[in-house]
Amino acid sequence: RITKHRVETHNIRIDHFGFLEDGTFKQRYLVNNEHWDQKGGPILFYTGNEGDITWFCNNTGFMWDVAEDLGAMLVFAEHRYYGESLPFGQDSYSDTKHLNYLTSEQALADFAVLIRELKRKVLGAQESPVIAIGGSYGGMLSAWLRMKYPNVVVGALAASAPIWQFPDMVPCGDFYKIVTQDFARSGLNCDVNIRRSWKAIDNISATDDGLQWLSGEFSLCSPLKKTDLDGFKAWLQETWVNLAMVDYPYEANFLQPLPRWPIQVVCKHLSFDPSSVSDYQLLGGISEAARVYYNYTGNCPCLNTSSTATGNLGFIGWYYQACTEMVMPLCTDGVQDMFEPQDWNFQAFSDECNSLFGVRPRADWAATVYGGLDIASHSNIIFSNGGLDPWSSGGVTRNISDSVVAIVIPDGAHHLDLRYNNEYDPHTVLSARIQEVEYFKLWITQARKLQIPG
Amino acid sequence: RITKHRVETHNIRIDHFGFLEDGTFKQRYLVNNEHWDQKGGPILFYTGNEGDITWFCNNTGFMWDVAEDLGAMLVFAEHRYYGESLPFGQDSYSDTKHLNYLTSEQALADFAVLIRELKRKVLGAQESPVIAIGGSYGGMLSAWLRMKYPNVVVGALAASAPIWQFPDMVPCGDFYKIVTQDFARSGLNCDVNIRRSWKAIDNISATDDGLQWLSGEFSLCSPLKKTDLDGFKAWLQETWVNLAMVDYPYEANFLQPLPRWPIQVVCKHLSFDPSSVSDYQLLGGISEAARVYYNYTGNCPCLNTSSTATGNLGFIGWYYQACTEMVMPLCTDGVQDMFEPQDWNFQAFSDECNSLFGVRPRADWAATVYGGLDIASHSNIIFSNGGLDPWSSGGVTRNISDSVVAIVIPDGAHHLDLRYNNEYDPHTVLSARIQEVEYFKLWITQARKLQIPG
Repeated sequence: RITKHRVETHNIRIDHFGFLEDGTFKQRYLVNNEHWDQKGGPILFYTGNEGDITWFCNNTGFMWDVAEDLGAMLVFAEHRYYGESLPFGQDSYSDTKHLNYLTSEQALADFAVLIRELKRKVLGAQESPVIAIGGSYGGMLSAWLRMKYPNVVVGALAASAPIWQFPDMVPCGDFYKIVTQDFARSGLNCDVNIRRSWKAIDNISATDDGLQWLSGEFSLCSPLKKTDLDGFKAWLQETWVNLAMVDYPYEANFLQPLPRWPIQVVCKHLSFDPSSVSDYQLLGGISEAARVYYNYTGNCPCLNTSSTATGNLGFIGWYYQACTEMVMPLCTDGVQDMFEPQDWNFQAFSDECNSLFGVRPRADWAATVYGGLDIASHSNIIFSNGGLDPWSSGGVTRNISDSVVAIVIPDGAHHLDLRYNNEYDPHTVLSARIQEVEYFKLWITQARKLQIPG
Repeated sequence: RITKHRVETHNIRIDHFGFLEDGTFKQRYLVNNEHWDQKGGPILFYTGNEGDITWFCNNTGFMWDVAEDLGAMLVFAEHRYYGESLPFGQDSYSDTKHLNYLTSEQALADFAVLIRELKRKVLGAQESPVIAIGGSYGGMLSAWLRMKYPNVVVGALAASAPIWQFPDMVPCGDFYKIVTQDFARSGLNCDVNIRRSWKAIDNISATDDGLQWLSGEFSLCSPLKKTDLDGFKAWLQETWVNLAMVDYPYEANFLQPLPRWPIQVVCKHLSFDPSSVSDYQLLGGISEAARVYYNYTGNCPCLNTSSTATGNLGFIGWYYQACTEMVMPLCTDGVQDMFEPQDWNFQAFSDECNSLFGVRPRADWAATVYGGLDIASHSNIIFSNGGLDPWSSGGVTRNISDSVVAIVIPDGAHHLDLRYNNEYDPHTVLSARIQEVEYFKLWITQARKLQIPG
């Protein structure tokens, strides 16, 4: 569904935290107020993440579904350096100097300033309680917006927000364990065959004929060379991860157009008896499985190993953020997960960041600035997580206090609760959405009470 | 009294909020642990303000007085760009570029990083609850440290912290009204005669003989010229303000060495019958009054109108901060206060900042980033204010919630509660200190409970 929204822009400072750079740029945001109660009705404010805001807007049906009940205005704010909100236009990504203002702190300040501006300028919004909503990195931003600017938002729904996926907070292996579990539960031998596939790739790619066979079998757009093998495996690994993220109970198009319960469809191609399957058979199955993800529409003439998902996400920007603040250790052991063993190597990562962007990640900063595991003194935050979602490994999945609460959706993938209602929705996500709206109403009531003088 | 402390330094990032500038500098901090209970005893952490930390350390006797009772380690952290904590050494103040990292947000991040570092490195401090303590701007930083980094400090004592002295939060005239009340209550006709003195200065300075008389009467180090008159008046005005800040009940040396209840001593020289006093008599009294402030020791050969207080404060740095984030409107009307009427003129101020530092103040930023009047969602903050202190005009003087509380000390001047116990202390400050320690103990108990797993 394509949402009906008004596109707006406003001027916002390039640097909120220094006064030497005094320039501004145009930040984009989308607005819908067809259901808004202009007498102080609430504002649901989507804290945009690492991509084009229109795409997030169209994939956050929950806000559209609840707007009428809440009498809410909807605002979707684009994150700086993504979509059309480029601080230095086409130079924004030209070098480290221009990238210097791409941080979560600057993005949160953008949101806080925009909200205060809207409340000042929009007739009827002066007393409107604002609720932050976001998913994934956008959900982290929603939670952090409430933590850092509780004067600006009365509460936050942080959906599938891995605020603890930082060094020394959660085990680095949990993420891939969950991916593996998703495949294990979706078809007989499915995880076992994927675990075996890496060795099969090594075996077959050992000869030039094998490489050629692989390229043909996978209909690769550019034929594989020996030096591409690590990249080829990484591309497959990311494919399985993405499938775990978007394992939705109905046909959907988030990262890619996909059938309902796509991992079950994938696993139909991977049910070989592992004791007897040949490497060629196995990789034939893997190629069919990959096609479920890359060619569900049947319109894809060849598979391109340089990309795994929608072009609406800003990969370079996100890589820069990972190379600076968003240091999220992941690792595999090949035993509790179906991948080749790989330790978390901070030094190698840091060196790569330095060579790519001329920056070094600060591993400890997120824990300092965003509270780490110690978030109990905050209030009015919902952390929702899907049991199928690998990112739940770094999410808050238990209640921290009466008002910092967790909602777990056992059969939900990555922020399923933020999507439109659907006839195939499991009851757990329906009940999650009902709870979320109940909290919203509670926060709105609290905010209105606080406004009574005395 | 000179305190016994160890001087330490550590390396800290110049820029916490961007990754282009990756350098570090040496931040100074002072430590005393003679009374510290090394089995997780608390840390009282002074959040340094705009000056040399040794001076604040020696003027914060409260922490030294309570250390033994609490089994506390004392830490006094110097604020970047002041004292010896200069990010770029002697170039730190050379231009706008080098001043770019002088912000309260960077200072708070310094404190948060230092505290986490101490807890990691000091044997026995891993589980130590940390309480932020500060006065004046340092008190604002204490409150903000708790608001922004509640994971790092379990609570804050913000003494005489004018966190609301920002645009559109409190009336700009209250500050000088309080100064005036201090003089009005300290001697017959005292405020009335000061109010009359401005016109008397105009009258007498109209002739060259008059100017010469004035210079002689005030023993000025450089004779007054016609063009100096505004500066001369501003110097006197600031003298009265400073006296209001340090109107302590005993002999003390904070901004200057002074007798007990210095305003009462000042007012002895200003009790003329206003209906009959001549301009010359009146200004003679004013000059005696000024000498109480500038020459209590009798060692001062002449009065210097280019300075009003101790050299331990960093005036240029503070001016830069006022010209960027710390926009604090003050105004006078000459009716409810004893000064010449002066509106708050943001544009003129902004222009002056631009010509001095090449920056423009951001009037609305403090309200966005530090919550403005809306601080009810925070916890464990004590705002203490003295009734005599002009800065109480921008302070929090009523309870906001059960855990964001106000303590008012009616006969206290600027953060009297942070000073050593003294036999002349009014009972209101003794009771304030008792309450403060009770809150500290409560926060420490709460923090220890939270550490029990489960």
